[in-house]
This record gives sequence, C-alpha cells and structure tokens, in this order.
Amino acid sequence: MTRIRFHQNLDDLKEKLLVMAGMAEQAIQRSIEAYRVRDLSICDLVQRSEPAINRQEREIDQMALDLLAMEQPMAIDLRFILAVIKINADIERVGDQAVNIAGRVRDLQAMPPVDIPVDIPKLASMAASMVRRALQSFIDADANLAESVIAMDDQVDQMNNAIYRTLSKLIHDEPSQTPQALNVLLIARNLERVGDHATNIAEDVIFWVRGADVRHHLRTGS
Amino acid sequence: MTRIRFHQNLDDLKEKLLVMAGMAEQAIQRSIEAYRVRDLSICDLVQRSEPAINRQEREIDQMALDLLAMEQPMAIDLRFILAVIKINADIERVGDQAVNIAGRVRDLQAMPPVDIPVDIPKLASMAASMVRRALQSFIDADANLAESVIAMDDQVDQMNNAIYRTLSKLIHDEPSQTPQALNVLLIARNLERVGDHATNIAEDVIFWVRGADVRHHLRTGS
Repeated sequence: MTRIRFHQNLDDLKEKLLVMAGMAEQAIQRSIEAYRVRDLSICDLVQRSEPAINRQEREIDQMALDLLAMEQPMAIDLRFILAVIKINADIERVGDQAVNIAGRVRDLQAMPPVDIPVDIPKLASMAASMVRRALQSFIDADANLAESVIAMDDQVDQMNNAIYRTLSKLIHDEPSQTPQALNVLLIARNLERVGDHATNIAEDVIFWVRGADVRHHLRTGS
Repeated sequence: MTRIRFHQNLDDLKEKLLVMAGMAEQAIQRSIEAYRVRDLSICDLVQRSEPAINRQEREIDQMALDLLAMEQPMAIDLRFILAVIKINADIERVGDQAVNIAGRVRDLQAMPPVDIPVDIPKLASMAASMVRRALQSFIDADANLAESVIAMDDQVDQMNNAIYRTLSKLIHDEPSQTPQALNVLLIARNLERVGDHATNIAEDVIFWVRGADVRHHLRTGS
C-alpha cells in the first residue's frame, strides 16, 4: 500500500466514523422527539436503528485493524487510528443511550400522562451539542474546541442535578406520580451519559492532536 | 526489539492491566462496604484511589501505543493490544462507578437513616463477579468463559429491574423516604453499569481470542 493510498484509507475511516456519528446523533434526537410528543412509532425507529449502528461499529474497528496490520503507521497516524477506535466505542454507546431513552418513553406512554416540570429537551439539546462539538473538533483536529466540550460537561451535570432535585421534590409531594417521575429521572441520567461520551471523544481528540494524554487533567467531575 | 523482548513487553502490558483491574475491583468493593456500614472514611479511600487508577490507564495506553509503534505486530498480537486498549477504558470506568457510589453514600449519610429493603450488596457481588470472570477470561484467553459473562448480564439487569420496582413502590408508599430511595436507585444503576463494562471486556476478549467480532451478536439487552 502506498503512502498516498494509506492516507486515502485514513480519510475513508474518518468518513465512515462520521456517518456512524450522524446515525447516533439522529437516534438521540429521535428519542427526544418521541419523548416530547409521546410517539411510539418514533421509538420503533430508534430501536430499529441499533443494529445498523452496531454493524457500522464492527466495520470501523475492522478497517482500523487492517490499517494497523498492513502498514507501520507513523506516530501521528497511529494515534489517529487509536483515537478512531476509542471514539467508535463511545459513539456506539451514544446510540445505546438513545435506545434506552426510547424504552423509557415506551414505559411512560403506558402510564397516565402527568405534567413533569423538567425540561428534558433542553438537557438533550445540550448533550447533543456536546457530541456535535466533539465531532467537529475531531473533523478540524481542533484541541481547543475539544477542551470547550469538556467544560460543557459541568453544565450538563448541573442541569441534571437540578432535574434530580425537582423530581425528588415532585415525588415527595405527589407520590402518585412516582413511576412517571422515575422514568424521567432515568432519561436525564441517560442524557448525562451522552455528555460523558462526548467528553470521552473530546479527550481522545486532544490525545490525537497534541500527542499528550490530557485525560483526567481537565476533567473536573465524574 | 527482538521477538522475545516484544512478547515480554506484551506480558508486562497484561500484568499492568491486571494490577489496574485489581485497583478498580477494590474500589467497587470498598464503595459497597461504605454503603453497608455507612462509613465516610471508606468513601474517602475510594475517592482518593481515582487518580492512581487514572494514571495507570494513561501508562497502559502509552505502553500499548509504544508497542504498536515499535513493531509491526502479527495479527493476533495486534488484536491483543487493541483488546488491552479497550479493556483499559472499561476498567477505568469501573473505577469511576466506585467513585460515583461513594458520592451517593456520602449523600445518604447526610440523611436520616431508613430501612431500604433492597439487597445492594448482592447486586454488587454479582456485578463484581462479572468483572472478575471477565478478567479471568482475559488471563486464560478463554472465550467460553467470556461468553458466560455476557449471559450473566441479564441476571444483573433483572435484579436491577426488581430493585427499581421495589424502590418505586417504597417511594409511592413512603414519600418521606424519597431522597434515600433515589440514592439507592442510582447506586443500583451504577452497579448495572459495572456489569455493562464487564460485558464489554468479555466481548473484547472474545474478539481477541476468536478473531471474530461477536459484539452485538450475543448481547441480548442494553
């Protein structure tokens, strides 16, 4: 394999990862749309997207493995391929969170509707924007942008904690709404985990770009 | 680097990963001990162990990267190194779960003590035994043992769902115990995630040993 061909393959790998990321992002957006309008057919869509995301993950890992096996990559390319392998795992788990949320929406749908005074779409939009920004930092090889993702994680955690307090109070005041409130609480946790995955991705981008491992240096909470 | 030296280095890498796994396992056990006896000094121990686990993760990644850079590893060694990199990330996140649990115990400790009728230590013991078994399958390169870990994940999920129902009912019946019950609910979720990480490790072992990617084939839930 020529050097040019090798770099073409690295580009293909990146492209494939971005396609997969788009699928996972869409799954999250759909799961929140399903929550917002309580639509089980959207839950179906999300749940049906899982096998395709999983297949994509396997193919990306295999491509990365083939590239590692066929060439002796330079240090920077090596770090890039490793970053792809790690980012790949995180994106797949973002997809898993969408499926988990869809499952919760299904449960909610089977319960009497109640007004839950927390803004899940807002939390979702922050978590999704962390993922998008992390991927943008990957596309642009921009470690500064990646750092800003890590900073956003605190906001998501704070919003999540506020939701926790609100729901805890709601459950206390209106015990009959406990099942609904618990489901919403778990959806908020799923979104918090999406934010965690975005943080992981950002850390891998920094590792790739700067060649130094900054994980656990910038991170302020867990 | 000679071939013998290379394999010595692979052994060192494995050894280092197992040391780190031991630290993460201990952190989980301690966090549950802290829960059982409500001892904040044990929470301290768990929280103080995090930087050491994180440092270990970075060193392992660096060793793996150096091995990939210096040699052109054979396919089986390449898969081994990639498995180590992935397992490494999962073990670090097991350590994160221990820290999360310790934080929950801290919150619980600040609340009036109530009797919460769910068996967290039992769930913890199942999740911990999944991790141990996954690591054993890694040590022995035993794909069958790894498969049994994946099967155990369903049991952990079931136990977790039962805990969810019990706590949901408790909250409904005894609203004043809501904050305590919610904390226990989140500890159960943290332990479920430990089981998920063990499942990921088992899948990586199978990928390494069999050379085929079985992820998402054996998995039955998410």
